This record gives sequence, C-alpha cells and structure tokens, in this order.
Amino acid sequence: MTRTLGTCYYPEHWPEAWWPEDARRMADLGLTWVRIGEFAWSKIEPAPGALRWDWLDRAVDVLTGAGLRVVMGTPTATPPRWMLTKHPDMLAVDAQGHPRGFGSRRHYCFSHRGYRKEAVRIATLMAERYGDRVAAWQTDNEYGCHDTVLSYSDAARDAFRDWLRRRYQTTDQLNAAWGNVFWSMDYASFDEIDLPNLTVTEPNPSHAMAFRRFASDEVVAFNRAQVDAIRAHSDAPIAHNYMGRVTEFDHYEVGADLDIASWDSYPMGFLLDRVGASEADKQAYLRQGDPDFQAFHHDLYRAVGRDRWWVMEQQPGPVNWAPWNPAPLPGMVRLWSWEAFAHGAEAVCWFRWRQAPMAQEQQHAGLLRPDSAPAQGFHEAAQVARELAEAPEVAPVRAPVALVFDYASQWAWEVQPQGQGFDHFGLCLDLYRGLRGLGLSVDILPPDSADLSGYALTLVPGLLNLSDALRAAIAAAPGLVLTGPRTDLKSPEIAIRTPLGPDLPGLPAQSVMEETFPDRRQLERGGAIKLWLEHLETEADVIERTADGTPVLLRAGRRFHLTGWPDRDAARRLLGMLAREAGLGTIELPDGLRVRDTGTERFVFNYAAHPQEFEGHLIAAADLLRLPRPS
Amino acid sequence: MTRTLGTCYYPEHWPEAWWPEDARRMADLGLTWVRIGEFAWSKIEPAPGALRWDWLDRAVDVLTGAGLRVVMGTPTATPPRWMLTKHPDMLAVDAQGHPRGFGSRRHYCFSHRGYRKEAVRIATLMAERYGDRVAAWQTDNEYGCHDTVLSYSDAARDAFRDWLRRRYQTTDQLNAAWGNVFWSMDYASFDEIDLPNLTVTEPNPSHAMAFRRFASDEVVAFNRAQVDAIRAHSDAPIAHNYMGRVTEFDHYEVGADLDIASWDSYPMGFLLDRVGASEADKQAYLRQGDPDFQAFHHDLYRAVGRDRWWVMEQQPGPVNWAPWNPAPLPGMVRLWSWEAFAHGAEAVCWFRWRQAPMAQEQQHAGLLRPDSAPAQGFHEAAQVARELAEAPEVAPVRAPVALVFDYASQWAWEVQPQGQGFDHFGLCLDLYRGLRGLGLSVDILPPDSADLSGYALTLVPGLLNLSDALRAAIAAAPGLVLTGPRTDLKSPEIAIRTPLGPDLPGLPAQSVMEETFPDRRQLERGGAIKLWLEHLETEADVIERTADGTPVLLRAGRRFHLTGWPDRDAARRLLGMLAREAGLGTIELPDGLRVRDTGTERFVFNYAAHPQEFEGHLIAAADLLRLPRPS
Amino acid sequence: MTRTLGTCYYPEHWPEAWWPEDARRMADLGLTWVRIGEFAWSKIEPAPGALRWDWLDRAVDVLTGAGLRVVMGTPTATPPRWMLTKHPDMLAVDAQGHPRGFGSRRHYCFSHRGYRKEAVRIATLMAERYGDRVAAWQTDNEYGCHDTVLSYSDAARDAFRDWLRRRYQTTDQLNAAWGNVFWSMDYASFDEIDLPNLTVTEPNPSHAMAFRRFASDEVVAFNRAQVDAIRAHSDAPIAHNYMGRVTEFDHYEVGADLDIASWDSYPMGFLLDRVGASEADKQAYLRQGDPDFQAFHHDLYRAVGRDRWWVMEQQPGPVNWAPWNPAPLPGMVRLWSWEAFAHGAEAVCWFRWRQAPMAQEQQHAGLLRPDSAPAQGFHEAAQVARELAEAPEVAPVRAPVALVFDYASQWAWEVQPQGQGFDHFGLCLDLYRGLRGLGLSVDILPPDSADLSGYALTLVPGLLNLSDALRAAIAAAPGLVLTGPRTDLKSPEIAIRTPLGPDLPGLPAQSVMEETFPDRRQLERGGAIKLWLEHLETEADVIERTADGTPVLLRAGRRFHLTGWPDRDAARRLLGMLAREAGLGTIELPDGLRVRDTGTERFVFNYAAHPQEFEGHLIAAADLLRLPRPS
Ligand SMILES: [Zn+2]
Ligand SMILES: [Zn+2]
Ligand SMILES: [Zn+2]
Repeated sequence: MTRTLGTCYYPEHWPEAWWPEDARRMADLGLTWVRIGEFAWSKIEPAPGALRWDWLDRAVDVLTGAGLRVVMGTPTATPPRWMLTKHPDMLAVDAQGHPRGFGSRRHYCFSHRGYRKEAVRIATLMAERYGDRVAAWQTDNEYGCHDTVLSYSDAARDAFRDWLRRRYQTTDQLNAAWGNVFWSMDYASFDEIDLPNLTVTEPNPSHAMAFRRFASDEVVAFNRAQVDAIRAHSDAPIAHNYMGRVTEFDHYEVGADLDIASWDSYPMGFLLDRVGASEADKQAYLRQGDPDFQAFHHDLYRAVGRDRWWVMEQQPGPVNWAPWNPAPLPGMVRLWSWEAFAHGAEAVCWFRWRQAPMAQEQQHAGLLRPDSAPAQGFHEAAQVARELAEAPEVAPVRAPVALVFDYASQWAWEVQPQGQGFDHFGLCLDLYRGLRGLGLSVDILPPDSADLSGYALTLVPGLLNLSDALRAAIAAAPGLVLTGPRTDLKSPEIAIRTPLGPDLPGLPAQSVMEETFPDRRQLERGGAIKLWLEHLETEADVIERTADGTPVLLRAGRRFHLTGWPDRDAARRLLGMLAREAGLGTIELPDGLRVRDTGTERFVFNYAAHPQEFEGHLIAAADLLRLPRPS
Repeated sequence: MTRTLGTCYYPEHWPEAWWPEDARRMADLGLTWVRIGEFAWSKIEPAPGALRWDWLDRAVDVLTGAGLRVVMGTPTATPPRWMLTKHPDMLAVDAQGHPRGFGSRRHYCFSHRGYRKEAVRIATLMAERYGDRVAAWQTDNEYGCHDTVLSYSDAARDAFRDWLRRRYQTTDQLNAAWGNVFWSMDYASFDEIDLPNLTVTEPNPSHAMAFRRFASDEVVAFNRAQVDAIRAHSDAPIAHNYMGRVTEFDHYEVGADLDIASWDSYPMGFLLDRVGASEADKQAYLRQGDPDFQAFHHDLYRAVGRDRWWVMEQQPGPVNWAPWNPAPLPGMVRLWSWEAFAHGAEAVCWFRWRQAPMAQEQQHAGLLRPDSAPAQGFHEAAQVARELAEAPEVAPVRAPVALVFDYASQWAWEVQPQGQGFDHFGLCLDLYRGLRGLGLSVDILPPDSADLSGYALTLVPGLLNLSDALRAAIAAAPGLVLTGPRTDLKSPEIAIRTPLGPDLPGLPAQSVMEETFPDRRQLERGGAIKLWLEHLETEADVIERTADGTPVLLRAGRRFHLTGWPDRDAARRLLGMLAREAGLGTIELPDGLRVRDTGTERFVFNYAAHPQEFEGHLIAAADLLRLPRPS
Repeated sequence: MTRTLGTCYYPEHWPEAWWPEDARRMADLGLTWVRIGEFAWSKIEPAPGALRWDWLDRAVDVLTGAGLRVVMGTPTATPPRWMLTKHPDMLAVDAQGHPRGFGSRRHYCFSHRGYRKEAVRIATLMAERYGDRVAAWQTDNEYGCHDTVLSYSDAARDAFRDWLRRRYQTTDQLNAAWGNVFWSMDYASFDEIDLPNLTVTEPNPSHAMAFRRFASDEVVAFNRAQVDAIRAHSDAPIAHNYMGRVTEFDHYEVGADLDIASWDSYPMGFLLDRVGASEADKQAYLRQGDPDFQAFHHDLYRAVGRDRWWVMEQQPGPVNWAPWNPAPLPGMVRLWSWEAFAHGAEAVCWFRWRQAPMAQEQQHAGLLRPDSAPAQGFHEAAQVARELAEAPEVAPVRAPVALVFDYASQWAWEVQPQGQGFDHFGLCLDLYRGLRGLGLSVDILPPDSADLSGYALTLVPGLLNLSDALRAAIAAAPGLVLTGPRTDLKSPEIAIRTPLGPDLPGLPAQSVMEETFPDRRQLERGGAIKLWLEHLETEADVIERTADGTPVLLRAGRRFHLTGWPDRDAARRLLGMLAREAGLGTIELPDGLRVRDTGTERFVFNYAAHPQEFEGHLIAAADLLRLPRPS
C-alpha cells in the first residue's frame, strides 16, 4: 500500500481565477487527494431542479488537470433553504420538542422520507455526472455531528412505530420484551407508542434502547440509499468521514456498506470538549491533544473500514469550535499525521486548504492563511510529504492485543448508566490507555467478531450482551481473554439475564449484585476500582481482591474476568500481569510517550511538551522516533 | 402496640405458579404485611371498562391464605395508555410549557377533573371488591415524586382561577392582597390571571405563593376523593406512602384524611440526591445514609399520622435512581429498620420482595435476587424479624423537645429565598441535627399546634407566619420556646408585616433589616451564623452577638429568639445552653452516633463506618445498641 | 454646575394621606428631585382609554408644593394586563421559542409596532398633561434589564426582514456580505431568513451580528418615538435610566436622542451577579461592591450623556435580587454617592424612598423602612446632603487617559468569542482596572470618536473594526495610543479583513494566527497573557514578549499594539510603562483604594473593609478622603 496525502478544498468559496494556482500548489506540496463538493448544494442547485454543473465541471477539470485525484462529497449535510420550503417538516426536533432549524448545517431528520429521496436524487445526479471522473466518494459529512442522530420529530415517531412493528410483530410481544407490565406501560397498538422523550421520569430502558437501535438503523439506511445511488453510476470507492467520539449510530454497520472508513481528527478540540480529560491532562496536553484518543480512533476505523481507512480531515492549526482554541505545538501537525500512518492509514488529508475569511469557521486554520500565504501546518505538511516520499510501501498488520468496542453497549449504558459517568467508550478508552502505557499495539474489534485466534490477549469490557459468534470465539480463542466489568449481564433489550449473567465460556460466574459509587475501592495490591463493582458468585480462582475482600479479578485457565472499573494504576498493573502471562513484552512508558508497531517499523511518539527518552534516544517535544520493528 | 414487618409485592410481574412459594417464604420470614396492586391498573383494566379481577382475586387468596395481611394500593399513579386517549389533556405540563408524557409513571395533572373521576372510579371498584378482604389501603403512590405536584397545564390554570375566586371573591381584593399595584400587575378579571411561570423576571411572590397553596390543595382534594370512595366500602385503615423530602404539598393536610401515615425510606439514595450533604458527609456516609435524615422523617410522619405511622418502603440493598448506587454496609438494613421502630413505627415493609429483571427499576435490589435466591437484605430482614419477636409491646411516647415544621413556610422561602440556599426544610434539619447531636429525642409538630405544654423546649424556626393557635400556645408554654430565625416576619400572603414582625408573645422585637450572605459571621463565643441575619430592635436581653456586635440570641424570660442560621458549632453550643436551661440532660455525641429514647428503651445507632464507644459499650460499624431507658 | 440629590417615589403605593409628610421629609433631607410614575400605568389607565389623572395631578401638586422637582417616568416598562388582551402577540419570545409572559415587568417585544404606538400614546398623553409641570423626564425603565432586548417573536422576525431589506437591498448582496456560500446557506428571498436561534449548530456569525445590530436599532427607535412624543409637548430634559452592564443595545445611540444619561447603581448586587469577580474579590468586597465597576459606568455614562449624567437609582441598603443580599458596610451609601459626584454626576437619586412591604421588591431597602422610620441609608443620605451643601460648584473636566468602549464589539465577541470568557466589556474593565490601580482618571469614548487630541494616552482594546473617524483620530493623536488585543481584525460583518488586519495608522502589522487558551502564557518580565494571543507579522519594534518569544507589545513611535489579554500584574506593569512614557504621574494603589481627580479636588475612596493609608492620611474602611487636586 502506498500512503498518500490530501486536502479539503471549496472551489465555490474562492474566485475561479485562483483555482489553477491552488491546484498547482497542492500538487507541488505532494498531495494526491482533494476533497470537494460536500457543502456546495446551493451552488449546484440554487433553486429546485435548476442545476448548475458548469462551475463544478471546471473545478474538477482544473484539479484533475493538475494531477490531483478528486474525492467528491455528496452535499446532503447542507440542504439549501428552498428544501425547507419544499419539505417544511424535514427538520430534526430536539428532546424538548423544539425544531432544529435552518442556518447552519445538518438540519435534517434522518427519518424524513421526502428528504431521503432528495438526498438520493442529488447523489444520483452527481454520480451520473462525475462517476467516471472522480477517484473516490464521500457520503454526506460527519453523520451525527452536533448531536443530530436522535430526532424527536413526527417523521421519526412514525418511522419508529414502523420499525417496532417489524421488530416485534405484535404489541403483546413488545410488551413482554420490554416488561411493560412494570408500571402499567402496556400498549394495545403500535400507534400508541411515542418516542421516549418528555416522560415524567426516565422511560423504560427497553423503550429507550429500541429508540437508540432504530435511530442508528435510520442512519445506516440513509447512507445506504446514497451508496446504492452512487454505485449505480460509479466504480470509485465510497467513504464517509466519521467524527471523533460520535457514537449515536453503529459505525460498523454504516461501514459495511462502504469501501473505505475515514474520520476527522481534531486532537486539540477533542481534548477540551469530548475526551473527558482531567484538568491536569488538559493542562499537560493543551497544545498536543490526548496521547491515546487519536490512536483509539485510528484503530477503531481500521476495524470499521476492514483495513481500508483514512484520516479525511486532519487538524492543521487552531480550530474555532472548542471551548478554547490554542495553536498546536510546533511539530504536532506532523506527529498526528505520522501517527495515522503508523496505525495503517492509507491517506491523510488536511482540513482545509485555505482558511476561509467568512462564516462559521473563519477562525479555523488551513494549510494556507486567508491571504494564501503558507500557515504553520503547511510547512509541517511539506515535511510529512518529503518523509513519506522516502518511506516504503506498507501492508496491514495485526496487533497482538484486541479490544472489543460496541456501539449498542454505548447506547445501553447511556440509557442506564446506573452511576454517573459509566460509559462504554470511556471504559474502553481507559483500558486502551492501560494497554498503550505498556507499549502494546491494539486492534479494535466489532462485537460480532467470530475469530480471536490471532490475538495473544483479547479484552471484552462493558459489553451489554455477548453475541453467539463472540461467545464461540472466546471459547475457541487460543490466547487470553479478559471479560468485564459489566459484560453480558443483560439481554439485548436491557433486561437482567435469566439465569443471572454473565454467561462466559469456561468461566462460570453469576453477578448477584452490582453497585456504583463516586469514590474508590482500594485493591489489596495497589490501584483501585472506581465507579462500578459487580459481586460475583463463582467457582473460578480469585486472583485480585479489594482491600475488603471483594473479588476483582477471576481466573479460570486462560479466561479472566474483571468485576470493576480499574483506575490507571490498577489498569496498568493488572493488564501488565495479563500481557506477561500472554507472553507479550511490555514497556512501562511514561506519560505522553506512546509506541505503535507496524509490520516493519516501531514508531515512538512524544505527546509531551518536553523531551523524553526512549531506549537511549532523546525525543523532542512533539517529535517522533522511527525504529525498526523489534523482532 | 405490636410492631410488624412486611414487603411490597407485584404478583403481576411473576408467573402465577410462583405466588404460593413466594407467599410461604414471606410468612416464614416473619412478615405480616404484603402491599400489592399500586401499579397494576393495566392488568386490572387492560381496556376502558374491561375489568380483569380474576388474577388479583387469586393473588389476594394466595397471600391471605398464607397468613399474610394485604395492603391494597390504588393504581392511580400509573394510568394505562388508553387513559390518555380518553383524556388527551390530562398530562401535567412543566414550567417551560412542555407536556410530561406517557412512558413512565405519575403522568397526570392533579387538576384534571376527568382524571380525578377515573381515579375515584377505580378506587371505588377496588374498594367494592376488596373492601372486606384487605387489611389496609394505600392511596396512589408517592404523591409528588418526580416533581409532579406543580403543573402548568390548562386544567391547572382553570382550576387555579376558580380557587382564586373562592379565596379572594373579587379581583380588587386579590390586587390589594398581592400588592399588584407595584408594577401595574392589577387584574380586572380572574380570567386574566395566568399561572406564575414564564414571566420575564420573577412573578409577584404573592402570586407564586397562591399557586403553591392551590397546588397543595389539589393534592389534598385528589387524595380525599379516593379516601371517600374507599371508606364507602371498607373499614380497613387507609394510608399513603409519602416520599422523602417531597414538600410541594401539605402532608399534614393529606394526613388528616388518612388513618396511617407512611413513608418510603431510601437512606443512601437520599444522601446523594436530596439531603444537601457536604462532600465530606457524602464520603463518610455513602453506604449508610445521613445519620439524621431518616430520623427527621420518622418524627415528621409520627406527627402526620397522629402517632400511627409506617415505613412502607424500606431500602434493602442498592437502588437504581440515585446519582450513584452503592451497596449498604452490612448491618445497615437492620439498623434502618430498628431505627424506624425506635421512633415509633407500627410496621416496616421492605421494597421489594424480589428484584425485577426488567424495566426502569431492574437495578433496584429486593429481599430476593431476580433468580429468587436470598439477597443481602433478606438475611438482615430475618434478623430483625427474630429480634422483633422477642421485643415487648410498645406505646407511643412524647419527646422532651419539639420542632415546628411547616409546608407553607417551605413554599414561601422557595418563592422568596432572598439568598441562595435559604430553605425551611434545611433550616429545620440543621437545628434537628443540633438537637440530635446532644442526644435529644424530638417531636415534630405542625404549624397549627395549640398545645406545647408537654415540652421542655420548643423550636419554631423559619416560620412564615405564626398562626393564632401557635402564638397562643407559645404564650402559654411552660417550657422554653426558641423562635427564629426568619420567623413571623411576613403575612401569609408573603408581605412584610405591619407593624414590623415578628409578633412574638413575651418577646417584643422588630426586624428592621434582613440580610443574606455567602460567607459566615463569627460569633463572639464560637461558631458562626451563615446565610441569614435579621437585625432586630428589641427591649429583650441580648445573650449572644456576632463578633461585630449584632444581636444573635435574644432572651425574655423563657422566650428566646435567634436572628441567624447557626452553623454546626453554633447550633450545638446554643441549643446545648437552651437544653440545659430547660433542665434536659445532654450528651455530646460524636459524628454518626445517634440516640433515640422510647418509653422503655434507649437505642444507640452507629451510622459510622467504624466502631464507636457509647458509655463504655463498643458499637460496631452499622450496628445498634439497646439499653434500658435512663430514668 | 450645582450637584443635587433625589429619590424615587411611588405615590400609588401609599395612602394619599401620607404624601404631604413624605414630601416634607424629602425636602428636609435636602433632596431636590423626586422621580415618579414609571410603573403606574395601571393606575393611570386602569382600562383601555379610561384615564385617571386626578391622583397623579395631586401627587405632582403635593411634591412640587414641597419644593421638589419632579422627574416623570413614562410607564412603558409595565403595560397593564389589558394591553395583552388588546395585543396578544406583543410579548417577547425567548431563544427557545417560549413567550415571556405577563406577571412581572418588561413583558413586551421592542419590535411590536402595535405596542410601540401604545407607548407613544401614553407618553404623548403624559407630556401633554405634565409637560409644563415636571422638571425632567425618564423614558421607560432600564431598557434591556432581565435580558429583554433580544426577542425571537414573529414581530421581531418580520421587522428583522425589513431591516435586512433596507441594509442589503438584495439577497445576493446579503449572501455575499455574510459568506452564505460557506454551508449552502444562501437565501433567495428576504422572507426565507429566520432569526438566528434554534439552529443545529451556531449560526453564521454575520447573521447573528446582523440580528444584534437590528435588535439595538429597535431599542433606539422605540426610545426615539417616545422622545419625539415628549418633546412635542415639553421642554424639560429627557433621560433614560440605563442598567449596569446591560450591553445588548448601543447606549451611545439611545443617548444621542436624550438630554441626560443616567444609570442605576447597585454595587453589591452587581459584584455577585455581573462583575465576574473572583471568589476572593467577592469575599473582600461583599459589602462594598467592586472598586472599579461603578467608576467604569460613571465614566461611560458621562460619555453617553455628553457630560450630562445622573445616578438615577443609587442603592441605599440591601437589595432583593442578587444571589445574596447583605447590608452595605456603614459608610458605603455615602461613599458610592460621593464617588458619582467625583466622576461628574449632576444628581444622585436613591432608590427608593420607602421600602415596599409587598410584591417582588419587598426586601429591597429604601431610605425609610416599611414603617416609615429612617433606615441606614437615610442617615448616610443626610450626611451627603450636608456635605454637598458646603461643596463648591463644579465644572466638567477631561481625564488624561481615554479608553474606547464599543457596543458592537461587545456583540461581535459574544457572537464569536473564539475562547470561553472572551468579552469586550471584560477586557475593557480589566484595562480600566489597570489604569485605576495606577491612580489615573479615565474618560470613556465611543468608537466613532474623531478627536484624541486631549489625551496623553488612549486605549483601543478589542475593537471589532476601527471606524474611519477613529483611525484618522489615532493617526492625528499627539499622545500615545495603545491598540489591541483583537482590535481591527475583522470587518463590521465579522469577516476576516482583506488584507489581514489590523490596519493601524503608523504601526504596520498583520495577524496571521489567533489563539485562545484556558491557561496563562508568562511574559519574560513578569505578569502573563490570558485567554487571547494574536500572532503578528510586523516591522514594528517588539518591546515585550512571552517567555517563549511571542511578541506581546509592539511599538512604532507613539503607537503601541498589545497582542494578548494581560492579567493584573501584566496590565499594571505595561500600562504603568506607557503612562510614564506619556508623561503621566502614577501611584501604585493598594487593592481597594482608588483615586479620582476633578477640576479642583482629588478624591480617594477606600473600598476595603479595613483602614488604608494614602500619602500619610489614614482612611477608614468605607470612607473617603478629599484633597486639593495636585497641580
Ligand atoms: Zn420549549
Ligand atoms: Zn359503590
Ligand atoms: Zn399632542
């Protein structure tokens, strides 16, 4: 695989006279890809049916003429104002019942069938016109950004009722599945069922979970409709650009309809607005981003894309949308880019070519300043391009450790956290940090993974329910498997399993009580459990306990189960023990230093704001080290 | 009085085949009571008018056949979905104007006359059918839980206007009573008056206070309608299960229509979500609950029930609804239960018999696990049953100290706190803590109490307005009486008294200025005043001052008045001085250790997570000590 | 100029029999002014068209008969309830779409044309009747208080569309000005444009900024309509009473239509609810108010009133509306009053004469208690009256330092702060503090100031865009001028300038990157930059840098530019350097001590709660010192 670079470009934002020079400079910089089109609907179709392709034809001509390969985005994240006149009820509605109006972007409800047809129509028209001329496609833009998956509109309500009819057939079966008898919540007709917002106290978690599954399915269907439309006219691969820590729909399912996964990586904004970092970490990594958050997403989208994945938008400087927006430390733009490649990215594209002087993102840096002079990121991009030109071809590689991440579990614990802060993503990220702090490279796996045979160690934390496939894979796994905490205690409808869960291959145990708490429970041998502790009855060996004797780590042969959420010290200690048991070499890495192994190289990244040493090498702040992969 | 035990049971949640075994195990455990029915409306009447009594008949048969006594709950907290089709406008509306919909419970507006008729209808049908077969009744469930007393619906608005017409006769009188001239707020017709939500800045406090009185009256009327319906067909005593720190309606007034008061005691959830505890106290009592909060409610409901009171729902393990839900320390389930008896409870019933595997409360522990095995609480319940079997009959007993608690004052200071955090309940609880820290047992009294002759010391803090009855009782009291702070400064309409209040028997004083503050004002002799300080002109002796000389404690003979809200140190010191002056023996109890005297015994409860000594006895964590009552 | 005193009085709140005695006591106290009428609409016109002037005639008779001069307020801040029946759509609507209803005050939308006519009608009627009898007018009351400038009503939307038509002529021009191409936000008709609320993510800042300019214009037009109505019938000067830190409309523009500016000064409430003070400062100044906040407003309204300005409402004791409401330290009522005069006030009027026992402000102190006895403020008012009687006539005086404050810049940075906490008012107040801490007196200037020739030093911080007039004035200024941070980087539409800004006379520089951050960037020589840092390319001298070398202070001759927001240490150090460079004498004042020079006197105010020394004089807590102005 040849690794490539690119950028995002908006010809409609600039005088046409500038396009040739822009294209030339992109090519000179060493870029391969240029993404265009994804916000341009009002220029393509300024009035209903009045199509204006000429300018876009010429833009494609100019760009391809300069040797660039075009990624064409469908513009469905920004329907023009006339669309709303045509479909006044197409807006999403928030949980309080307020419509989410025109004036920015993503102002549509995924369930509105009229708008879905419009999306297919424009995608079809673009695919017909550019199917042979572009090198790749992007559907829409950042599904779910700005909390846009969950809509409480009439369109969503009607579609939800249809979805329930298909899933449950009869209200009797739905009532039974949800346990509606609990508070006289039984329904006699699907038309009686509302969306689970504005209830007096929390709705039935089964009701809420059904809505979450439905909402994800609506995104999948919306995307699939566009994909089908494009495929009918183009052989170019299709991608979508997922957004960091947007978990309201199942990315694996959307990804199954696509050829390439990609994501938009804004490490510094993420640190302040979604990582959930401590104040100390925010301080330490303010101008670098969290040392593990990007890597987690890289590994996630490698799974979503079945090894074909990109960074579609890479932060090149300060952005505009985080609580504060500092400039990256010099070197970080290069570091982030190389880190993506170290995790197997095919391409890294910087967002955006030139900073726009107007509208919402005018304070978002580009590779160029608004006056077209090179910005900080330009020079680092140039360095990456030079370095990449000298780098070898690479092939995908399996990591020795796997971690199962599951969107449905994320929804389940949002619906029923049981204790403030319980979160599947957060739990997985904490364990991922623990593994990374030991120098381990990790593969992220979907919850229906059927084969763990390649992994020395597999972690299955916080999984709502083990699928049959995964249960069989665990049973057959030759390596170590660690389940828990809060794994397989519930049915897919969020009901307590009968008999009591978890139902773990080779490790018989029953959780007889679960508790959550704001404080910590110290372990006998160091570190602590926070937030969650399940009390198990088991025949397995107890190899770690809390100071007051509650079992924390169970073992039966090569199967392990964790009963609580470990803090950093406990995670590092316990995971280190497991890794060594699994025959893996571990390195106790200091904060901010991170290792990633590819098939041929070992990359060492220094996210710290000060130099750090690694095996005798001094790595400057925001710098990286490339070593041969250790054998 | 024989003290008894019970549990809450939902036959409709379980296979009928399980009922006999459940009933037998309850009886074997030593339980007397089983509460059923209160959420079962959709099973009793699955469609409008289609009544299904057979299953409930059989459930009653099975339970009574096992020797249990049934408490039947009217199911009006959970109207079925068809009710909403019949009465689409029955929903409560929140202060922002959003309807509070179906999908959980308590989805009705107390002012909706159509729903009130439905509630009377189902209560009548149940009373007709079971009036002779059940041993007690419960109306509805936890009035006011989930903030359901205040509704801003059209039904509430119309009923409020009617209520105003009855109270004020003419708008001229209303305008005068409220001082509407202040900002040209005069009304010319009752139909011009809206509910006091969504105003530009705060509404007239008299307007808001009228709405609060009205809303309480609606609960009283709703309950009374059910009580009348039941009484027409049953001689069994009627109770309602009040919820901890729900103060939006007058429990004394509802209680006046009932035979028994009961409340639902969840000490650990309360600590985290409503006690208002400091972070240190949350840490110290995370698995025990606040050491005074339950006792306060026990004493309150002894007053509400005129000595007949129960704990209808007692926490048996972790619950599901608090911010975090840890497991109680071993021993606490027993301790809480005995504490209720020490305060004079007739019965303690654990909620619930078996943990439900489905729906909203699936993480709420029962005496049994979902798989029917005994849970932690079961064993402690068994111990209480054994201990109770050996305990003597008891009779109600007066405490030496009284504290007046008043719902209208709670509403008044919510309407007009004057400083963030000023709260009648909180003030009363703080003084109650001060008394309890001195080893004193306390009676809580309603604001219309006419006889204080039995009390060596009576506290009347934060009372909006002294009733004529209470003023006369204070004048006649042979014991000490402490009024203030913020007592009797206003009219019942929330207007400043003319001449200036307070109007205290035997202690002439006028408050000429009131101030609130976020910091503390130190007292000359230790401790401090927080949040509130009224500046009095008085002829009485000043026996305590702030460091800068402001009078804090006034004395005229056996009458005392406090001008500020004392912190813990000041409360203990000042109340200790008063108690000794009143001839009461005091004990300086350490944190977490609490004493309650009955007619024959002295109970000492250790809420701490470590052993503590009391008069030479070592009491384990979460344990209790029973001594003979000191003479 | 003779300096005078007054009070606010509500004859409609009191028995008519009390009026003569009240008037006599006011006159005896030494008051000149009595403001009446501004909340009395329902008494003047209890039903539509039914006018009742008799009582107001008699009130004016009594007050003028006692020698007092009447300020008559138009009652348009409190339309009676019948107005809403007449104009049901006159209410403002909040950003969530909820109407802001009747029941308090300010319940009208500035854009409602029907209500505007009613306001003109009542103002006309009052002017016709009292035009010859009153000594001054006040329009409405505290425009913008309770967040009432921005309304999202249909009336506002329609008026906004008209405003846009006038401003932009065509949607093509609007689309270009706003950069609507950015996210396909183009409009084809003005009727497609909604207000910028309820968008999915933030609206186009140009859209939001246009709405902010429109909303301010609506206040100006509303006020102007009343002014025109009054002027047609009265020669008395017209004022409006602005409220502290209400910045949603352009006070300079409203002021241009008035004769006198006045503001309502509540130092203690402001400290807790709008100054943005640190916890330490809240603690230190709880009973005094912020040492610079009042002075800043005094200087601001001196500019708004073109040297004619009053304090229309001066706090006389505890108020009712702040988070907490303590009593002022003895002496502060006098101090605040003298401070206003030291800044050039013509008159200071205390709000209110007598504390009202009813309605929303019953806990708001007056000069009299509710029972008509003198309250704390009365005695301090009497002292001010005595002192003023012995004080000389004064004339307005220019300060040596100027600071430009601009409402449009306030709106711009609210629309696009780029980092949490960035705020034009806050930045100006911080620099004003820095100047005051050096003992400097300051003039505040509007952004279209065309002449800086009188100032040794002028500060122009955080200005969205330099007007042509101000740019020319800077170019011509003989004194020092300091621009920045964040000055002139944008167009008036909030778009990045082309070529890159700022465009500063005599100091060529271009900002190539701006960043915001929650931490501090230390300066080489002490102090730090917080929140904002712009990176400039410049030929100018860099005379201060951050520790990592980023230019912080640029100099070209007598022109200086600051690139970041200085903390207190940095502000004092840098401003001190500039002041000395400008030839100004500086004094390093301790916290709480503040100096203000008039033409003849030097006033020294001690806001601290402890005595402080100034040049050998000991000034008691809450006291002031009057010295001859140093030559
Ligand atoms: Zn709403
Ligand atoms: Zn009957
Ligand atoms: Zn006229």
